[in-house]
Amino acid sequence: MDLLEVLHLDELSHGLANLSMFPYFDMAHYIVSVMALREQPGALEVSRVSPLACWFSSMLFCFGGAVLSGIMLAEPPVAPLSNGTSVLLASIIWYLVFYCPMDLVYCCAALLPLRLVLSGMKEVTRTWKVLGGVTQAHGKYKDSLLVMIAIGWAKGAGGGLISNFEQLVRGIWKPETNELLKMSYPTKITLIGAVVFALQQTHYLPVQKHHLMLIYTIFTVVNKSRMMLTGSSASPFAAFESAIYKTLFTGSSPYAALTDEVTKACIDNGTSKMTTSPTTTKESSENGVSGKHTPVSPNKGRSGSLKAKEESENTETTSCKKTD
Amino acid sequence: MDLLEVLHLDELSHGLANLSMFPYFDMAHYIVSVMALREQPGALEVSRVSPLACWFSSMLFCFGGAVLSGIMLAEPPVAPLSNGTSVLLASIIWYLVFYCPMDLVYCCAALLPLRLVLSGMKEVTRTWKVLGGVTQAHGKYKDSLLVMIAIGWAKGAGGGLISNFEQLVRGIWKPETNELLKMSYPTKITLIGAVVFALQQTHYLPVQKHHLMLIYTIFTVVNKSRMMLTGSSASPFAAFESAIYKTLFTGSSPYAALTDEVTKACIDNGTSKMTTSPTTTKESSENGVSGKHTPVSPNKGRSGSLKAKEESENTETTSCKKTD
Amino acid sequence: MDLLEVLHLDELSHGLANLSMFPYFDMAHYIVSVMALREQPGALEVSRVSPLACWFSSMLFCFGGAVLSGIMLAEPPVAPLSNGTSVLLASIIWYLVFYCPMDLVYCCAALLPLRLVLSGMKEVTRTWKVLGGVTQAHGKYKDSLLVMIAIGWAKGAGGGLISNFEQLVRGIWKPETNELLKMSYPTKITLIGAVVFALQQTHYLPVQKHHLMLIYTIFTVVNKSRMMLTGSSASPFAAFESAIYKTLFTGSSPYAALTDEVTKACIDNGTSKMTTSPTTTKESSENGVSGKHTPVSPNKGRSGSLKAKEESENTETTSCKKTD
Repeated sequence: MDLLEVLHLDELSHGLANLSMFPYFDMAHYIVSVMALREQPGALEVSRVSPLACWFSSMLFCFGGAVLSGIMLAEPPVAPLSNGTSVLLASIIWYLVFYCPMDLVYCCAALLPLRLVLSGMKEVTRTWKVLGGVTQAHGKYKDSLLVMIAIGWAKGAGGGLISNFEQLVRGIWKPETNELLKMSYPTKITLIGAVVFALQQTHYLPVQKHHLMLIYTIFTVVNKSRMMLTGSSASPFAAFESAIYKTLFTGSSPYAALTDEVTKACIDNGTSKMTTSPTTTKESSENGVSGKHTPVSPNKGRSGSLKAKEESENTETTSCKKTD
Repeated sequence: MDLLEVLHLDELSHGLANLSMFPYFDMAHYIVSVMALREQPGALEVSRVSPLACWFSSMLFCFGGAVLSGIMLAEPPVAPLSNGTSVLLASIIWYLVFYCPMDLVYCCAALLPLRLVLSGMKEVTRTWKVLGGVTQAHGKYKDSLLVMIAIGWAKGAGGGLISNFEQLVRGIWKPETNELLKMSYPTKITLIGAVVFALQQTHYLPVQKHHLMLIYTIFTVVNKSRMMLTGSSASPFAAFESAIYKTLFTGSSPYAALTDEVTKACIDNGTSKMTTSPTTTKESSENGVSGKHTPVSPNKGRSGSLKAKEESENTETTSCKKTD
Repeated sequence: MDLLEVLHLDELSHGLANLSMFPYFDMAHYIVSVMALREQPGALEVSRVSPLACWFSSMLFCFGGAVLSGIMLAEPPVAPLSNGTSVLLASIIWYLVFYCPMDLVYCCAALLPLRLVLSGMKEVTRTWKVLGGVTQAHGKYKDSLLVMIAIGWAKGAGGGLISNFEQLVRGIWKPETNELLKMSYPTKITLIGAVVFALQQTHYLPVQKHHLMLIYTIFTVVNKSRMMLTGSSASPFAAFESAIYKTLFTGSSPYAALTDEVTKACIDNGTSKMTTSPTTTKESSENGVSGKHTPVSPNKGRSGSLKAKEESENTETTSCKKTD
């Protein structure tokens, strides 16, 4: 029985590995991406004010990964534009989602059953993109695990990683948040994929490529479907992340007392205010302190100086003051 | 008679095609560009606070097209710096326009007759830059019309397209507007040039290159002169743009009721406020909705939900509320 | 005696030229850089909220020069990531500086004697980076002095030059200032180094390379130590800069009456407000004025129009009004 199962899975994984993304899976990716753009605040207004800006944004949503990985590898960022068929397909989908009479296309695609199928197909393209990025990086930097992870991640989640600049195209600028400060689920799952595929490529992970593709694809599709059906955005890695964080990244500083939410509140409210704080005189560039430096003294003394620093910088963030 | 005219025009177009931009036309381009920079709010103060930042801005105004097209084609963006003679010429002009005793150079060049001639000569360089970009892209991506248009556009209007980042050099940041959201006349005319030259290069437009160069140059020079003499900034394409917009980009959504000005006002006032809106929770990255999605229901129902969305996001934009 | 001194210095300069930066000098550079990041406002909070964003920022501090010079020369910006040993070393140092139990590493390294030694060693790496950049540029653009200076400067002070974008990673955005508008000491000293090494490379400066390396290194180390010991941030070039500025960049405009501090205050307070000024209608893009232009009339008349412009733009900057 096991052997049969294995044989079936093996056939399935080979079949998946040889599957072509074009045109159906790519189409699903474009539809889901453009719908995600449309649901962003202000996107509909931009589509009426400037169809060109709206189209450019949509292309960044659809091809952001290829653009970002191209920039990172010093390859022309316009290369995705040269694939005329894909760009035409994405443009037609963009037009139908934003400007279809009676909003027919968007309304149909937004119905849960169809959206579920399209999102599942989009998750399949994620595997291809991550693997493509890892392979491309492996070709240029044979032994560099970090480069492979970076390019695989960029290719699979590029659109999210460049979201600040995609929003800038639409006239929106939100510097207080980005995908590194607050990683969304798709970006996380892509990073994990990039890590496992890079480990497999460099033979640290003793799994065959097509098996790994199958496992990863099933995992992403199942998770995505679960999240859409339950309406939950709880990450399946929350417990693992929490454990890693508590073990490695809290040390014995007074910040260990700050909960995740409180610190996030400090960032959400305080970070932007820090830019106008008069106490930013010790700001220094990469190449060393300009002569002034304030060594932070251990535990209790540090609590004191950090509290003073926080009070002057985050006067409206009462939760920080209470906790520290 | 017709044949003679044609012969003369043919000679003229050949003459134009063989004309060298260096040094007089390039000089005119540098003078007009640096004067345009000088007339920007705050530019004079920057020239006194930091001549280096002012010089860097001027170089972006003068060579922005070459820098942007270089970035897009993964060619070194410092390449324009290697043309020592051009950079030296542009730097001398920068110095004279900003720091000449008695402000002699600026005042003379600002006199209408001279400014008219210089602007006309600058328009001639536009043809060269657009054509240069289209040809350069054609060399790398033989059949890609989109890439040729993109590179031709970037090379001809690069300075305008990167204006957000050029302003950043001077300490100014205006994310609520950019050349895609609100295209200025020079950027529009360059885009049109890029399209026609790309169509000609790929033989979709059955016109000879030097004839097209002559027609385009005459068109841009005449329009520019007209606009400067009448003081009008009315685009010659306004009617055509309006027709295209009404046909393709209004659909049957309630937004069809919004006039262009009202929607623009929404963007001008509302977009920046959207960054602080508490209702931006459904913001999602490129790779799919995080689990929440709000399908927009057809016509009337949509008016309701969109109105509610607008009211929560644009509380100060009364014009939007009244219209919707 | 002189010959002996020269011989000793010659041996010393050869010794310095053949010194390897890895691992001790590189380590010192990483430690000082990460400590500088840690002392930035808000960096500790970011390290608790998002270790990944903190790590990425640290890598930009440590390898920012290589990244920026790579971008400028169209070489892959991920190339520094491929040097696994350096990245691992920098990452370990990042972890120890931010998360060491009892904050041991930071507190020890912050003690003045040790910090002095580490900063001195970091200054030695500056020489290598500037020279490396100049040589790399010389390989691609044999005769271009400007390109060599630009790449040498980028490689030596890249982290400071890209500080706006490094801060963006941490959720901070301060567009009103950058290293071109207000150059910090490290960026200045690196620019000077890039100029002298480029002049030496192109044989305009008749000094041998290893002698120049020794002189420059001694100069930077001594200055840095002096500034750290005296707690003074006064630039050694202040008098020279002032002379150059008064000679070349004041002309006979009414701005000559504005002191440096007043103009800086205008920038500090006024520039950000200019973005909302209603009088910014004459803003134009690179490619020429859109039809409106306001020629500035000479001296007295100009004082009047500039005063009016200032009053409307900088209503809160009373110092500007009083001076003009």
